[in-house]
Amino acid sequence: MHVRGAPLIGATAAWGLYLAVRQYDQQLDFAAYLKTVVAQLQQTRPTAVDLFYALDQASTSILASLPEERIKVARMAAERFAKESAAQCRAIGEFGLPLIETIASKKPGEAVNILTHCNAGKLACLAYGTATAPIYLAHEKGIPVHVWVDETRPRNQGARLTANELGEAGIPHTVIVDYLGGHLMQHGLVDIVFVGTDRTTRTGDVANKIGTYLKALAAHDNQVPFYVGLPTSTIDWRIRNGLTEIPIEERGGQEVTHIYGWEEGKNRNVRLTPANSPGLNYGFDVTPAKYVTGLITERGVCAASEEGLLSLFPERG
Amino acid sequence: MHVRGAPLIGATAAWGLYLAVRQYDQQLDFAAYLKTVVAQLQQTRPTAVDLFYALDQASTSILASLPEERIKVARMAAERFAKESAAQCRAIGEFGLPLIETIASKKPGEAVNILTHCNAGKLACLAYGTATAPIYLAHEKGIPVHVWVDETRPRNQGARLTANELGEAGIPHTVIVDYLGGHLMQHGLVDIVFVGTDRTTRTGDVANKIGTYLKALAAHDNQVPFYVGLPTSTIDWRIRNGLTEIPIEERGGQEVTHIYGWEEGKNRNVRLTPANSPGLNYGFDVTPAKYVTGLITERGVCAASEEGLLSLFPERG
Repeated sequence: MHVRGAPLIGATAAWGLYLAVRQYDQQLDFAAYLKTVVAQLQQTRPTAVDLFYALDQASTSILASLPEERIKVARMAAERFAKESAAQCRAIGEFGLPLIETIASKKPGEAVNILTHCNAGKLACLAYGTATAPIYLAHEKGIPVHVWVDETRPRNQGARLTANELGEAGIPHTVIVDYLGGHLMQHGLVDIVFVGTDRTTRTGDVANKIGTYLKALAAHDNQVPFYVGLPTSTIDWRIRNGLTEIPIEERGGQEVTHIYGWEEGKNRNVRLTPANSPGLNYGFDVTPAKYVTGLITERGVCAASEEGLLSLFPERG
Repeated sequence: MHVRGAPLIGATAAWGLYLAVRQYDQQLDFAAYLKTVVAQLQQTRPTAVDLFYALDQASTSILASLPEERIKVARMAAERFAKESAAQCRAIGEFGLPLIETIASKKPGEAVNILTHCNAGKLACLAYGTATAPIYLAHEKGIPVHVWVDETRPRNQGARLTANELGEAGIPHTVIVDYLGGHLMQHGLVDIVFVGTDRTTRTGDVANKIGTYLKALAAHDNQVPFYVGLPTSTIDWRIRNGLTEIPIEERGGQEVTHIYGWEEGKNRNVRLTPANSPGLNYGFDVTPAKYVTGLITERGVCAASEEGLLSLFPERG
């Protein structure tokens, strides 16, 4: 968990492969060596598909190259993945921006209230982030925005990372406990929701940080538009059913029974539960496509469905 | 917040009135004095209606009594409220128990998985609790149960109080972050949900600890039965629309930006957010009746609707 956020995980894996190629010992069979390294890197995080995509792209290029070119090809593959990701984030921002502009035009002088869960921003990605890209672009254009930041238990990536990012960018925001969003939506205080995804099925189901599903249900119940920002690399074209086909990472119960926070300038890890009460901790949940208003990809916005995705990616039909 | 849980708030208010009657200064007009005290006590917590019910019952009895009897009448009113609440909790347990027994009969040898939010147990009430009463009775009868305990941010009454209560009673339980329940329901790991309520409309809308609404949406989406345990005193017969008519207590943002936990034997309050990120904190949300499978009252189980409630309380028709 030193590295988090789907695009950043992918980029880091590609750079890991580059380092492994540099360390290659001539006495081993190269293809077998590469296969072992790829398998090791794949096992680091089961849910984020960017990891598999980045490793697949890079290892294919490396295997196809001449032995003396392998290191250079591996480096170029990693650079290409990072550069592509940054361009994709920018494009997601540009395609998502009109959604904010439309709301802003209906409430002149008032801030557009945007809710986001976890961190799909700069600290998870390589540029504007995925889910946050439209927010940054709107802010740059001078559109007044206010962001409801879900704290995102158990690791509090919202309270720790997203709040920090937005604060540094000067974007007004308020940190809330993870289910206050339901109440806020019931009272018309959320105009739109933007979240990221770690893996998207070809039918538009979305696996994202635990809690996303409940936020989608609340948005659906209150007719609040719920959009998912994603670079192509998070789409797993092989699968159709997010609930049964996406493996969900189970993490240590200690993230639930304990929490990190600051006191007197020191980062502390305090216990929240009685000593004998265990915690259970899954990192992600799956939001069925029917609760997603739209997907914002680097090629445009589409419905969260196979037809929607194929309208933007006809080559996958 | 030294006193929490709707029935306990009501009982404490009744005892507060008793103390005020004892301290009455003969030079003031008694009726005016009592009215002022009632108004002060009413202002302590806006959402829980037990408070208003207990004060109304007690002050009516006191005003109707002879001056020399007032102190005795006030004490009896407080004792009566406490005794009634305890009997109501027991009755709620007895009416809720068959719901657990029915599930247990369908999965012999396996524990019934029950999800609860916040603390509507012994520590909020005066006996078995409201929402937890059926769980305690099932455990006493030897029915295997396992409780998913929502930590219940921001004050973590689940992680701190419910986990502690269940642990002391020897009831197996696991603490989870507040929206893991959605994922667990999607995967068939929750058999039934029991929660309490701070105020119930005559149409069956329920105001309970923030987050209850999202749990009800998830239960509805996954066909998991969602029951609310309530003593009569939480029903506000005057109102029909929970979303517009129940005032929701706004509490300090510091409960969101900071959290209490233990470290090295010391109870610490650590900061979770960047220093300049504000928090917003509403204590309750409203779950519309359509998402509630049933209400468990001290008179029996009914549908969450006006017809359902009037079938048990025909005198309110």
